Amino acid sequence: MEETFVPFRGIKNDLKGRILCYKQDWTSGFKAGVRILAPTTYIFFASAIPVISFGEQLERNTDGTLTAVQTLASTALCGIIHAILGGQPLLILGVAEPTVLMYTFLYDFAKDRKDLGQRLFLAWAGWVCVWTALLLFLLAILGACSIINRFTRLAGELFGLLIAMLFMQQAIRGLVEEFGVPHQREDINQTAHQSSWLFGNGMFALVLSFGLLFTALRSRKARSWRYGTGCLRGFIADYGVPLMVLVWTAVSYIPANNVPRGIPRRLFSPNPCVASQLAQQKEFNLRRPSSYHYDLLLLGFLTILCGLLGIPPSNGVIPQSPMHTKSLATLKHQLLRNKLVSSARKSIQKNLNLSQLYRNMQESYDQMQTPLAHQIPPALGLKELKESTIQLASSHGYIDAPVDEVVFDVDKDVDDLLPVQVKEQRLSNLLQALLVAACVAAMPLLKKIPTSVLWGYFAFMAIESLPGNQFWERILYLFTAPSRRYKVLEEQHAACIEIVPFKTVVTFTLFQTAYLLLCFGLTWIPIAGVLFPLLIMLLIPVRQYFLPKFFKGAHLQDLDAAAYEDAPAIPFNFLFEDSNSEARNFNTNGGEILDGIITRSRGEIRITQSPKTLSSTPTTCSDIIPANGNTSSN
Amino acid sequence: MEETFVPFRGIKNDLKGRILCYKQDWTSGFKAGVRILAPTTYIFFASAIPVISFGEQLERNTDGTLTAVQTLASTALCGIIHAILGGQPLLILGVAEPTVLMYTFLYDFAKDRKDLGQRLFLAWAGWVCVWTALLLFLLAILGACSIINRFTRLAGELFGLLIAMLFMQQAIRGLVEEFGVPHQREDINQTAHQSSWLFGNGMFALVLSFGLLFTALRSRKARSWRYGTGCLRGFIADYGVPLMVLVWTAVSYIPANNVPRGIPRRLFSPNPCVASQLAQQKEFNLRRPSSYHYDLLLLGFLTILCGLLGIPPSNGVIPQSPMHTKSLATLKHQLLRNKLVSSARKSIQKNLNLSQLYRNMQESYDQMQTPLAHQIPPALGLKELKESTIQLASSHGYIDAPVDEVVFDVDKDVDDLLPVQVKEQRLSNLLQALLVAACVAAMPLLKKIPTSVLWGYFAFMAIESLPGNQFWERILYLFTAPSRRYKVLEEQHAACIEIVPFKTVVTFTLFQTAYLLLCFGLTWIPIAGVLFPLLIMLLIPVRQYFLPKFFKGAHLQDLDAAAYEDAPAIPFNFLFEDSNSEARNFNTNGGEILDGIITRSRGEIRITQSPKTLSSTPTTCSDIIPANGNTSSN
Repeated sequence: MEETFVPFRGIKNDLKGRILCYKQDWTSGFKAGVRILAPTTYIFFASAIPVISFGEQLERNTDGTLTAVQTLASTALCGIIHAILGGQPLLILGVAEPTVLMYTFLYDFAKDRKDLGQRLFLAWAGWVCVWTALLLFLLAILGACSIINRFTRLAGELFGLLIAMLFMQQAIRGLVEEFGVPHQREDINQTAHQSSWLFGNGMFALVLSFGLLFTALRSRKARSWRYGTGCLRGFIADYGVPLMVLVWTAVSYIPANNVPRGIPRRLFSPNPCVASQLAQQKEFNLRRPSSYHYDLLLLGFLTILCGLLGIPPSNGVIPQSPMHTKSLATLKHQLLRNKLVSSARKSIQKNLNLSQLYRNMQESYDQMQTPLAHQIPPALGLKELKESTIQLASSHGYIDAPVDEVVFDVDKDVDDLLPVQVKEQRLSNLLQALLVAACVAAMPLLKKIPTSVLWGYFAFMAIESLPGNQFWERILYLFTAPSRRYKVLEEQHAACIEIVPFKTVVTFTLFQTAYLLLCFGLTWIPIAGVLFPLLIMLLIPVRQYFLPKFFKGAHLQDLDAAAYEDAPAIPFNFLFEDSNSEARNFNTNGGEILDGIITRSRGEIRITQSPKTLSSTPTTCSDIIPANGNTSSN
Repeated sequence: MEETFVPFRGIKNDLKGRILCYKQDWTSGFKAGVRILAPTTYIFFASAIPVISFGEQLERNTDGTLTAVQTLASTALCGIIHAILGGQPLLILGVAEPTVLMYTFLYDFAKDRKDLGQRLFLAWAGWVCVWTALLLFLLAILGACSIINRFTRLAGELFGLLIAMLFMQQAIRGLVEEFGVPHQREDINQTAHQSSWLFGNGMFALVLSFGLLFTALRSRKARSWRYGTGCLRGFIADYGVPLMVLVWTAVSYIPANNVPRGIPRRLFSPNPCVASQLAQQKEFNLRRPSSYHYDLLLLGFLTILCGLLGIPPSNGVIPQSPMHTKSLATLKHQLLRNKLVSSARKSIQKNLNLSQLYRNMQESYDQMQTPLAHQIPPALGLKELKESTIQLASSHGYIDAPVDEVVFDVDKDVDDLLPVQVKEQRLSNLLQALLVAACVAAMPLLKKIPTSVLWGYFAFMAIESLPGNQFWERILYLFTAPSRRYKVLEEQHAACIEIVPFKTVVTFTLFQTAYLLLCFGLTWIPIAGVLFPLLIMLLIPVRQYFLPKFFKGAHLQDLDAAAYEDAPAIPFNFLFEDSNSEARNFNTNGGEILDGIITRSRGEIRITQSPKTLSSTPTTCSDIIPANGNTSSN
């Protein structure tokens, strides 16, 4: 993306690019069939649970002016509109922690002023939204959001880790509060406030939250389990996390007969009658889709909309957006794999030779690609691997012989050929937003979830967001014993730790950590806390003018590479090179590959294909900008 | 061991073999220095904690006639005598679950009879011990215990799994009881019996026991952690389990100010004054050491002794004995490794060539062996590996060149050369028995351990005993998805699953499982439960006459091999064959190897060295026989 400041040019370019894929965004979503439900439910829970909890937090902080109903409504409304009209359909919108902090600061400011007070707070906040939106429009029209390029990996990953810390903080704080008397608006049950029951409640909360955290983390790796059928393992990996929320909610009912009501504590939420007034206004606003500039424009409209409705605005959220991208990468992998395997099988049946087989596979592969694929560099990943394999085969002299299962081991070799790609479509985003909307009606059901399960879920999200964050990987690398560093190199790892001298990595990481702690510390300060997004902004000049004084340019570029470069693990397959085909079969199953995708990378998956897929890379950056743009000026 | 029935011949042979190593059993123990404390503390906790809990169980069942003091005293007394005079010093003696069951049955029988009653119960039980001892003498003198050979792996592993099930049952039952009103002799605190506190106590128990279980299991694998220095990792792996007992005991005091006394429940034990009368009689009985026959004879004397003192008799226990063997294998590995590495380093400094280097290493190796080593097949493991490596080296043409670190990578290659061996000595056994004796005095300290930590520890022991049990491995193998079986083959695995057809493995395993469940079920039946050791005995004819009708002889032999045969994992090192030495260095650290030893094999480690080391193999069998001989005839 070039830095262009000609008015409207950015928006126009975005629209031009996006409109070409718009139809396929929908058709490919529907073609995926039931499988689309896996990323949908996964991201729905990741989206709804924090929003509900932020709603509760907001309710406490604004004396009930804003509740979970409002945050859910905002998330659903903005999500639906964005899924249909948004530029980047992988972006998940929601009310985020920074917005909650900002609204809290606003309320504290407003409530004691005679000319505002609680009564006019929402109207006043609405005006704040209008002004925010105007600023966003200005940025979008002037194309100034090209400045996003200046937000390097340094800032992106720092912000990611900050959010993870805030989530973890919320999890711990929530758990500690389970031992104390709850902040409850109505006193349901005084028995539950006896010190004996408080203790029991706290301990039960520990059991439930750690139970959820542990089982949810485990279930994500189900694909590489040894037991159970592949189908079951896949199901658990796809739906394990929501399933575990259900399971632990069920567990929370086991001692129901022996404990007073209110133990364990469950989600508190007001009646959903407030939502009806919102429901009528949901039809609104229609525009054409594209990318950054356009999305920023859309965000402006959404912010006005939310402000006028009296609900807090939504913006792109982390870690949910990268989680969404990851789960779609898994889906795409499955679909692509099925297609290529069946194509390869057919070719083998027809006794074709190796190069014909690859040609057929390439065709099937191209069919699955975006309509833009022919305009830009072709599927490099597949092609390169194909060539090297053909070379190997011809050196063994069977290039022209009909292929059989020995030469081309369908299951295994297809896995080797497959590049990691993201299944881009709008359906999962739309569906999850609709589910969030349904939450408003389903409040009585949601109330059954114990708060402690929610704290466990917060911890889960914090931990899930870590792998693939190069900053985090570098922190771990610092703590890795020198004698064990080879293990890091044996796995997939950030390329920079091989290229850059260890000492430089240490200094850079320590600087980044200090900066992170500074940001985190700032959120603790009552009113000045409002300034913490500025610290992130400040990283732009820091990166451009300050850091180059201390680090070599080349090192900085490696440590702060915009594109995520993975150095591959030392390939275990190598082992079987001249071994028999039985041994090669050992590596047949894609489970580990998928597990790798799931646990690794914050949605920034190395992509060599189309500009369309490339556009998924900035999920991280676009998370930051709207969040900052939105909250810092609110 | 040939089956000989000439009176006293077995005992004489045993004595002859054992006496030769007796001196070295002590010197080598002392030579190990502080390191001997690692297996000592490890096995002390494994020995003392169940004995205390069995004591509590016995106290409930015998209306306080027998308590933890008696079980501890028996364990300490028999342990000390056996460590000094016993044939097989790796055997850990203790009061076992079967003995507790048997004493409970005896008490139930005696208490309602006018001519016995509670008053004469101990005297009567003493006579039972005398008769048991007479039978043991008869078996020992007639050499009939050669029949132990008939107890094949089938019976041994079945018994091992049965004990694991009983431990796990105790853990679960204990945890469930934490939610109920405790069986307490004195009512310390009525507040703690309110339903609210019962609930809190139960939940706290869940936290503590799962906390212990999880952290203890993790700490055992510390050697392959990535973080921390090698020294710290080694310390955690060696002392992690007792450390975790301390940590979780400390955690149990965190809410001390907010909860009434009695939450969480802690070990209950009577005053140690009863023990003084025992302490005076501890000097007793002196004999010369050897193996089976002799150990059985000694067990007879110990049983009489216990009977006369009015304490329940001890016998070889599982899983503690295999745990002991395993921890000593770790120790031996460390010692041997240090010696060989320093020898290799010296040779390299002197610019010797490869075969000279090996000769020096062989010498150092031999120095570490038992004095019997020259009488029997030499150190095959080291020799074979040496030859294959020399062959490889000569084919590369550097056999006569002075060795350098590239040709012979000291750290890595020494690990490859090292066979797994057990550090045999008497010191750790003696020390742990003395520590158990000290427990009687340290009762006030032990009382601080929460019972829930104890349940976690039971679960830990049950789980620790599983890896390496071929029966268990086969059960897991049945549940392994066909597409994932290659993973089992990639690791160390029981050889039989490769040799024997899958269907046969299934049938055999199902039969064994059914038999196991039968044994387990029998322990639940009130009085007939006494017969469960008979079911294990019955396995001898079943194996000899019944099974051959359904399975091919060769298959049976593979499935029921007396010696443990491991098929090696596909070696990962292979990868680096022609790679540079830096890559080879990757595999330098022995952590994984040691972790493998720890987590694998029930103390039956493949040993190619001396008859002395071979004698450690039967730890499993000798666990069964004394246990059965003892309990079934009590």
